Amino acid sequence: MIGVFDSGLGGLIVAKEILKRVNSPILYFGDTAHLPYGTKSKKAILNFSQKNTEFLIKKGAKIIVVACNTSSAVAGDFLKRKYKIPIFDVIDPVVEKLYFKSKTKQIKKVGIIGTPTTIKSGIYQNKIKKIFGNQIKVYLKACPLLVPLIEEGWIYHKVTKEVLKEYFLPLKKKKTEALILGCTHYPLVKDLILKEIGEKVEILDSAKEVALKLEKFLKNNKIIKEKKKEIKIFLSDEGYNFEKMIKIIFKKPLSHKIINPL
Amino acid sequence: MIGVFDSGLGGLIVAKEILKRVNSPILYFGDTAHLPYGTKSKKAILNFSQKNTEFLIKKGAKIIVVACNTSSAVAGDFLKRKYKIPIFDVIDPVVEKLYFKSKTKQIKKVGIIGTPTTIKSGIYQNKIKKIFGNQIKVYLKACPLLVPLIEEGWIYHKVTKEVLKEYFLPLKKKKTEALILGCTHYPLVKDLILKEIGEKVEILDSAKEVALKLEKFLKNNKIIKEKKKEIKIFLSDEGYNFEKMIKIIFKKPLSHKIINPL
Repeated sequence: MIGVFDSGLGGLIVAKEILKRVNSPILYFGDTAHLPYGTKSKKAILNFSQKNTEFLIKKGAKIIVVACNTSSAVAGDFLKRKYKIPIFDVIDPVVEKLYFKSKTKQIKKVGIIGTPTTIKSGIYQNKIKKIFGNQIKVYLKACPLLVPLIEEGWIYHKVTKEVLKEYFLPLKKKKTEALILGCTHYPLVKDLILKEIGEKVEILDSAKEVALKLEKFLKNNKIIKEKKKEIKIFLSDEGYNFEKMIKIIFKKPLSHKIINPL
Repeated sequence: MIGVFDSGLGGLIVAKEILKRVNSPILYFGDTAHLPYGTKSKKAILNFSQKNTEFLIKKGAKIIVVACNTSSAVAGDFLKRKYKIPIFDVIDPVVEKLYFKSKTKQIKKVGIIGTPTTIKSGIYQNKIKKIFGNQIKVYLKACPLLVPLIEEGWIYHKVTKEVLKEYFLPLKKKKTEALILGCTHYPLVKDLILKEIGEKVEILDSAKEVALKLEKFLKNNKIIKEKKKEIKIFLSDEGYNFEKMIKIIFKKPLSHKIINPL
């Protein structure tokens, strides 16, 4: 049983990528009572992340996927130290992917977009610096409006386009060759992102990369075989625009259960 | 001592209006750990509102102002029944103002903008119907992106203008003569709102109206005399863009204290 958590529904995009590749039931927890994490403090996010992990373990999860960049940035390493089961975050896989891409493709400058707390955490810079030294320059841009826009369902909206244009201005000036989508919501506006940043820019998507890494891990360790593909969704509060978001992500309706009401 | 609470920093706009008119210290509590309330469930907001009220009472507040439309909509009447001290919400004063305005000005159609939960609560329609029957038609529009835009500091930004244009489209079609700003953040973009909705539309601002009502109440009951005008700010988590928002609202810096860390 794979436990996946996020501050809200964005992590379902990660869950969907996992379901595509892995035969296992997924337990999903969205901490909608505290959503969004991206503008909350480090201390708060550490606290929330720990609670979410413990809830999933209690429900039977044997592997945890931190499907939220803000949680991964702030609490990922802490959770890995604290719990004995395998814990995957959404940051390491994308940094590893950047490493492999840089071998075949000229990448000297990489842009990273994310929530304010993810960007402020410095996690991407630190991890990239550890691998590449000063070989790759990192340009950061916090995009606090992107999640609310996506949750409003304005996926192809001209306002979203306008906001991206403004957010990408500094990155385009620097002519970054790659762009890390440092928030699990962002793949939903990948088309618009490509259009605004330029089709030649290599897009690195954390949702897809963590699913690939997990698939490889399970195969190497021969852990899961032919179990049922299904997802159980738990939320700490009713999810805003839940049906709309589920339809955008899964193209079909799914039910959910409100637990642990605050 | 007047206790004022909100989900975040928007209620400081109410606090500022109160400070303009009343000689009393203010205790402010912003529940930034759970911000925003506008997309959370009724149950969650009832729970948060009760905790906020009890915190302020414990700190010495003798009067409570619920400086959040979502809390007022969902928990206002509940809090008034539960606690014995005077409790003011931000909805009644603006509905009363509408009543007085309608005596001197032709108002048959009123638009109301607010967060999704405030709009969904039906509180404004119910209160207006109680006073006016079917004499005034109400048109509602949830504006979930306005708070994030304001908190980003995009007060005069073309994106904010574009978003308002889209949100106001149905209200303009109905030719509403008045518009209730059903969220304490919204006065910060009043200029843009007026421009987009039309200068002739009567704008009813809940922040100002609750301050006026409180001033009148204190005068009538001769409660406060020449005390110190000051504000103490407590937050349940670091406020995103705190310094920027404080500067926008008060035009000067103010400190704050993080309490009760979750």
